[in-house]
Amino acid sequence: MERYAEATKQTYEGWEEFYSRPVDEKLSFFKQKGRIFDVIFAQQFDRRFLDDLCDLAEKIRLLAKTKMGAQKLSSLLPHKRAMLYFVQPSTRTFLSFQNACYLMGLNVSESRGTSTSSEVKGESPEDTIRTFASYVDLIISRHPEAGFAEKTAWVLNQTERPVPVLNGGSGPDQHPTQALLDIYTLQREFQASGGLDGKKIAMVGDLKRGRTVRSLSYLLKNYKDVTLYYVAPEVFRMKDDIKFFLKKHAIPFHETDDFQSVMPMVDAIYMTRIQNEYASDPKSETETFPAYHFKKEHLAKIHPHCAILHPLPRRYEIEVAVDKDPRAAYWRQERNGMWIRAAMIAHVFHVDQEILAEFS
Amino acid sequence: MERYAEATKQTYEGWEEFYSRPVDEKLSFFKQKGRIFDVIFAQQFDRRFLDDLCDLAEKIRLLAKTKMGAQKLSSLLPHKRAMLYFVQPSTRTFLSFQNACYLMGLNVSESRGTSTSSEVKGESPEDTIRTFASYVDLIISRHPEAGFAEKTAWVLNQTERPVPVLNGGSGPDQHPTQALLDIYTLQREFQASGGLDGKKIAMVGDLKRGRTVRSLSYLLKNYKDVTLYYVAPEVFRMKDDIKFFLKKHAIPFHETDDFQSVMPMVDAIYMTRIQNEYASDPKSETETFPAYHFKKEHLAKIHPHCAILHPLPRRYEIEVAVDKDPRAAYWRQERNGMWIRAAMIAHVFHVDQEILAEFS
Amino acid sequence: MERYAEATKQTYEGWEEFYSRPVDEKLSFFKQKGRIFDVIFAQQFDRRFLDDLCDLAEKIRLLAKTKMGAQKLSSLLPHKRAMLYFVQPSTRTFLSFQNACYLMGLNVSESRGTSTSSEVKGESPEDTIRTFASYVDLIISRHPEAGFAEKTAWVLNQTERPVPVLNGGSGPDQHPTQALLDIYTLQREFQASGGLDGKKIAMVGDLKRGRTVRSLSYLLKNYKDVTLYYVAPEVFRMKDDIKFFLKKHAIPFHETDDFQSVMPMVDAIYMTRIQNEYASDPKSETETFPAYHFKKEHLAKIHPHCAILHPLPRRYEIEVAVDKDPRAAYWRQERNGMWIRAAMIAHVFHVDQEILAEFS
Repeated sequence: MERYAEATKQTYEGWEEFYSRPVDEKLSFFKQKGRIFDVIFAQQFDRRFLDDLCDLAEKIRLLAKTKMGAQKLSSLLPHKRAMLYFVQPSTRTFLSFQNACYLMGLNVSESRGTSTSSEVKGESPEDTIRTFASYVDLIISRHPEAGFAEKTAWVLNQTERPVPVLNGGSGPDQHPTQALLDIYTLQREFQASGGLDGKKIAMVGDLKRGRTVRSLSYLLKNYKDVTLYYVAPEVFRMKDDIKFFLKKHAIPFHETDDFQSVMPMVDAIYMTRIQNEYASDPKSETETFPAYHFKKEHLAKIHPHCAILHPLPRRYEIEVAVDKDPRAAYWRQERNGMWIRAAMIAHVFHVDQEILAEFS
Repeated sequence: MERYAEATKQTYEGWEEFYSRPVDEKLSFFKQKGRIFDVIFAQQFDRRFLDDLCDLAEKIRLLAKTKMGAQKLSSLLPHKRAMLYFVQPSTRTFLSFQNACYLMGLNVSESRGTSTSSEVKGESPEDTIRTFASYVDLIISRHPEAGFAEKTAWVLNQTERPVPVLNGGSGPDQHPTQALLDIYTLQREFQASGGLDGKKIAMVGDLKRGRTVRSLSYLLKNYKDVTLYYVAPEVFRMKDDIKFFLKKHAIPFHETDDFQSVMPMVDAIYMTRIQNEYASDPKSETETFPAYHFKKEHLAKIHPHCAILHPLPRRYEIEVAVDKDPRAAYWRQERNGMWIRAAMIAHVFHVDQEILAEFS
Repeated sequence: MERYAEATKQTYEGWEEFYSRPVDEKLSFFKQKGRIFDVIFAQQFDRRFLDDLCDLAEKIRLLAKTKMGAQKLSSLLPHKRAMLYFVQPSTRTFLSFQNACYLMGLNVSESRGTSTSSEVKGESPEDTIRTFASYVDLIISRHPEAGFAEKTAWVLNQTERPVPVLNGGSGPDQHPTQALLDIYTLQREFQASGGLDGKKIAMVGDLKRGRTVRSLSYLLKNYKDVTLYYVAPEVFRMKDDIKFFLKKHAIPFHETDDFQSVMPMVDAIYMTRIQNEYASDPKSETETFPAYHFKKEHLAKIHPHCAILHPLPRRYEIEVAVDKDPRAAYWRQERNGMWIRAAMIAHVFHVDQEILAEFS
């Protein structure tokens, strides 16, 4: 067992200094033995990793269809225990991770409150995290504060028990496993048409604050000849940082407020929710922006193979009548979250080869 | 795997129309492959089903006594995962179902709050349920709203993933697994005297609002020559719908407010709690109706074989000193809830024959 | 199976009378078949038991390091289910017990609220406990009320299903598994120097109200030639009952308010938190008593082998910079809680010999 993080890690004197560094400089800190150990940023994933992980998720999904396959999966990590530390509530992400753990045979402890009893007693968040690490082998956290998961991993990597940390969402900035499930879903939906390379993808709705469309935009740099269509009202246009990133990587993108004109042109439509709960502009509280809703009548306008995605929960952005169309991929997408998270856990604990060997 | 509900189900255009139909017309909707798939109404159970399920519960109870038997049971469904969705709190029903799941080897996710984070974000209850179905293979729900479990099953049966739904209580109308455990308890207690047929059963207390005595009354139509004694103060008399039902099925019943006169006559006494928490009549808030309490001194008045039942929790309806009498069946009754629910789960997942085979 | 508690137990007519008896008279009530059945008081542990349990915990810790060893452990009690009933929140104790259960293969149900739904319906605490016993095989409770765990065990031992009860803390009086983990930690830290016998141990901070230092003082009577140093400000001096106990058992102890003078003299320093949350003296609310903090600079003053313990959570009593020193034992101590609790569960269910046999 590798009980001590490499000595080099100790050279970081303090969190503030570490946190301020560019993400690219920090990626190696979250690796062990040449592979991802902590899952903190979407920037940690390159094309090879994404392809391998989607392949692994697909294998897990197939194995889980039979009792014998499911038992094979749950026999891989019965000696591991996970902690789900969800300071910010999220039914979907929580259940997805918990059932991914169950699939792989892990036992699960949870803290879903906004505060633990120890915090009441004046314990620091760092000590609370170390306490979790005393009892479990994997920490999955969700927190309203930007950088929380990163700090968690940073602290633990300097201790005798650096258990891996999976970021289940930390504030407005990062939600890397959501990005993974979106990529996996697009790959699955495009299975018959050669995968993600060369595809045209529309992102619709609140692009300004939507964490998922931002992360997905970043990750799409790993794919060849992808074209993006940003469809949003003026108030919710994609921010400049992403557009700058796309230009830098020579990824073509178009901006428009005309959803209907884009519909017939794309291979996938990624719908998003208007994030009223983060609203700063009072106008967005009541406005539902119906021009950016997908309705049953639109099914006739899109490609026969066009996949419709949504990170869910939805409100009125997609009409319920759309659900029954085979191109409505969002319920599969939701379930894909469980498969890709199980794959991520398998990867972190080095049992990926054992899973792939079932198919050789 | 049977991934799609039969096409006929799609003919129901809307929930309101479906919900308004008589129960008898809807029973087939909750079946798959000729057996119960969703457990929604007590009306789904006929004599043969009840006998089989009680037999199965008995086998499960016996197997669970040994480590080897318990391991046999938990080896049956380790590839399945359940969701306990308890919007209305109920410690007893929750623990009973959860441990029934554990007995059969299922992993369990839970939501015990009154609201999920997704509801806060404006998600419809139907979408919340579909989300659960994305991650688990069985949904067990408890909800204050009448018809909730029925709607859950109705929605899921129209999707690609119609996982079974078990109704753990939905509002004032249905709590079918409570009815099952009551039947199982009576059968067990009457094991030495030929079972439920021909027995005299008193129901005592708040018969007007008591969900358990109402459901049990319905189910007793499946047994021969049963006689009922409804013992209640005027204000809590059994409602006419049940009495009409009994008359229709030629089940003799007597109504009285004199508990003491009934005691020596019956084979079982089913005590109930005065349901103050639902009280509409202010008088019932403070009145405990002592004439309808069972006290230690009454033990001398009842048959040597008379079984005393109570759905629990109790307050003052049964004196604690009664607990030690062998005829006090209510603690066994409570534990029977776990066995019969485990049997129900085994039935839904078609592993009943594997359990029975252990005894052949 | 031993379904009935011995008849003698029924001679206790009431709880109040039982509760008022001296602890020594009650110990046999919490035994079955000559060994501890319910873990209620630290007074239940004698030297032989402590040595055996520490040995068992050490074996469990070593087995858990490998997948094969961990699977051996979790194969011992897969047919058992535990209930964690934590009326008083405690993240640390909860997670420690839960993961100890997982290690031994038990499934776990939990109630972490301050009230259950049944209590709302007017159920007595005794009935609530009996309900838990209907579904599980082990109850682990934490409660703000003194005597709660004792009463729980007392009630259950008079029923048909006397499942074992582990006291996870009941009010200000008892927290026996914390005392066990402290002993185990000292034994482990002194492994190279002949164990606890003959050692000098300082206890520092709030000795007046600190439950852990009080319990540990009691338990140290089981070891030879131990010397205690009570280091506290005047307002938090150790109470007379403990000092009387030490004198009675001829255990030498010294009292001082000068922490620095004691540092170079002792083999272990047990730091405690100033328990503001129980404060009656307003002065202690804001005063942090820095003279009783352990700082990085103190590391130079203590023995090269001196172990630093703390029950955690800490606030400012130990500087974070101390954590990296190998003598900082508190994080190991925290994790020891899981091993010793797993050992306690193994003991209660009589699988200790199976574990030891792995090493023969």
